[in-house]
Amino acid sequence: METLNVDLGERSYPIYIGEGLLRRSELLLPCLAQNKAAVVTNTTVAELYLSSLTAVLGKQGVEVVQVVLPDGEKYKNWETLNLIFDALLSHHCERKTALLAMGGGVIGDLAGFAAAVYLRGVPYIQIPTTLLAQVDSSIGGKTAINHPQGKNLIGAFYQPKLVLADTATLKTLPEREFSAGLAEVIKYGLIRDASFFDWLERNLEKLLKHDAEAITYAIRRSCENKATVVAADEHESGMRALLNLGHTFGHAIETGTGYGAWLHGEAIAAGTLLAARLSRRMGLIGETEVGRIANLYRRAKLPLSAPDFGVKRYLQLMGLDKKVEHGRNRFVLLKKIGEAFITADVPQQALTATLSGATANA
Amino acid sequence: METLNVDLGERSYPIYIGEGLLRRSELLLPCLAQNKAAVVTNTTVAELYLSSLTAVLGKQGVEVVQVVLPDGEKYKNWETLNLIFDALLSHHCERKTALLAMGGGVIGDLAGFAAAVYLRGVPYIQIPTTLLAQVDSSIGGKTAINHPQGKNLIGAFYQPKLVLADTATLKTLPEREFSAGLAEVIKYGLIRDASFFDWLERNLEKLLKHDAEAITYAIRRSCENKATVVAADEHESGMRALLNLGHTFGHAIETGTGYGAWLHGEAIAAGTLLAARLSRRMGLIGETEVGRIANLYRRAKLPLSAPDFGVKRYLQLMGLDKKVEHGRNRFVLLKKIGEAFITADVPQQALTATLSGATANA
Repeated sequence: METLNVDLGERSYPIYIGEGLLRRSELLLPCLAQNKAAVVTNTTVAELYLSSLTAVLGKQGVEVVQVVLPDGEKYKNWETLNLIFDALLSHHCERKTALLAMGGGVIGDLAGFAAAVYLRGVPYIQIPTTLLAQVDSSIGGKTAINHPQGKNLIGAFYQPKLVLADTATLKTLPEREFSAGLAEVIKYGLIRDASFFDWLERNLEKLLKHDAEAITYAIRRSCENKATVVAADEHESGMRALLNLGHTFGHAIETGTGYGAWLHGEAIAAGTLLAARLSRRMGLIGETEVGRIANLYRRAKLPLSAPDFGVKRYLQLMGLDKKVEHGRNRFVLLKKIGEAFITADVPQQALTATLSGATANA
Repeated sequence: METLNVDLGERSYPIYIGEGLLRRSELLLPCLAQNKAAVVTNTTVAELYLSSLTAVLGKQGVEVVQVVLPDGEKYKNWETLNLIFDALLSHHCERKTALLAMGGGVIGDLAGFAAAVYLRGVPYIQIPTTLLAQVDSSIGGKTAINHPQGKNLIGAFYQPKLVLADTATLKTLPEREFSAGLAEVIKYGLIRDASFFDWLERNLEKLLKHDAEAITYAIRRSCENKATVVAADEHESGMRALLNLGHTFGHAIETGTGYGAWLHGEAIAAGTLLAARLSRRMGLIGETEVGRIANLYRRAKLPLSAPDFGVKRYLQLMGLDKKVEHGRNRFVLLKKIGEAFITADVPQQALTATLSGATANA
């Protein structure tokens, strides 16, 4: 088992990474303040892991309230959040009752937000079961639901007490979702870790073949990057926004196509390629770098073409992005592979050209 | 103008109390990070103060987004919260756009919660216009909406940047609401400030006659008590729960009668009398103390009788109270006037006798 720490003062917490951790109740028990806990998960993950987690906790005398939600990004909304509240209330869950979020990014965001606002905040534990959640969304306390007008517009910064990443769960993950997770792994290489990007270029096929050592290394290195950034800027007033590389375009793709049509990681890959092409148009990086990025995505079986919404629709979709400041869009762009930066100084023409070629230059 | 400070480290903020503060834009401007702000208020308060506040800010170049909600406790729910989100989104309010909550406790709780979760948190300012909000709900960062199963079940601890209490607004407050606010003023005397309780016994008629000096003194002393308690225990893990004197019973009254039938302060007065009678049954205080409390409430024109729901219904309504711990109800009781304490050790018989006599012994 690998152990990392997210260093946030009194809100610090550990990340455990390893195979079979879901069976190790001794890792969970120190975070439970009473002999009752609520597990929030979805129908797909419940079928695979809920009965065993319930049994593992039950053996230690912990009563488990099971909250099983429908599976999918389109359920990341207020109605589903209310299903969680209703279940917690009808089982008399209290301020000390911990929530365990077992699933992918949608479950983590939903259950984390429920934990943030149920009785003005209860403790929660992230048990990510997808690659995307293990390397990104389960760490750092960003929780949210979607709004018809945009992704993650309603939410909270609310840190878990523990992140427990059982790499065994990745074996049951559909290939498409594994690839989507790789988009976030690659992101760390792009924004701040060039040698990790090199390592990914050398080892991508190992990851796709589920080589245990390679996967654990990639998750650990991703989590280290994420934990460092979050510790430096918990509430995204500065460098944390670098983690949003590809997200301004990516959220536009997700919103424009309807939640769930594209997986988040797929939209991020296509969005990051748009950000890379915009960076190239602005003379920041060259065609070689764009080619390296596109090639790695191609090998990871990620989409290279964004939907051809047309420039006007893209701008409209991005105008509602929550990273807007003083009425201007801020972009995360690349200076080189391994160094991203934030700017609001993007020539309209370069943006328009990039968006109008969204599909053409794939 | 009187100035207090709520001492919460990096989340500290000032409370300004005085007549005519709504016209003093120089108090608000330091809290606005951009030349745009959203004022959240209700139809009643909007008619009285919204155009003047908008003009005062407009003169300083601040664009005001007006969000006017229906008036009443029954609107303290998710649907109304969404009206705020919709307005903020359609006016492109950003992470730096401050929300100004102008109104009573319902507006403060609703707008405060909206600020806590819109884009994962935006700055907000409390501008309380009722006595209850000026002495209690605007201070300390408790925000929430109601759930069909209970009051304030969904919310957040989220501190404002500033509390601006313009005592002139109390002149337009209906008498019934002024009385309801007095219930929270009296509460501070009961839980931790015996000499303030004595002062209230001597000066209650001055308050009812809107004597400016007496009102400012009562608000300031209430705010001092509240600020001290909040600074010591921001997230209600200990002594802050003392502020809930009368609230376990009071919330049961509010939920049982349907939100809005009783004003919050009225329910707190009747609930506090139940807590006092329970304290007397347990031999903690005497009949004299109960009589002093009842007499002060009577002079303040507050209800002395709780609804006669019957014991079973009361227990059911209280079973959902969020201050439940380890499945047992915790009560705030009185050792004497000026000293409250928290206990889960309440004999069932004393509780039952108190509840069954809810109306009889008024």
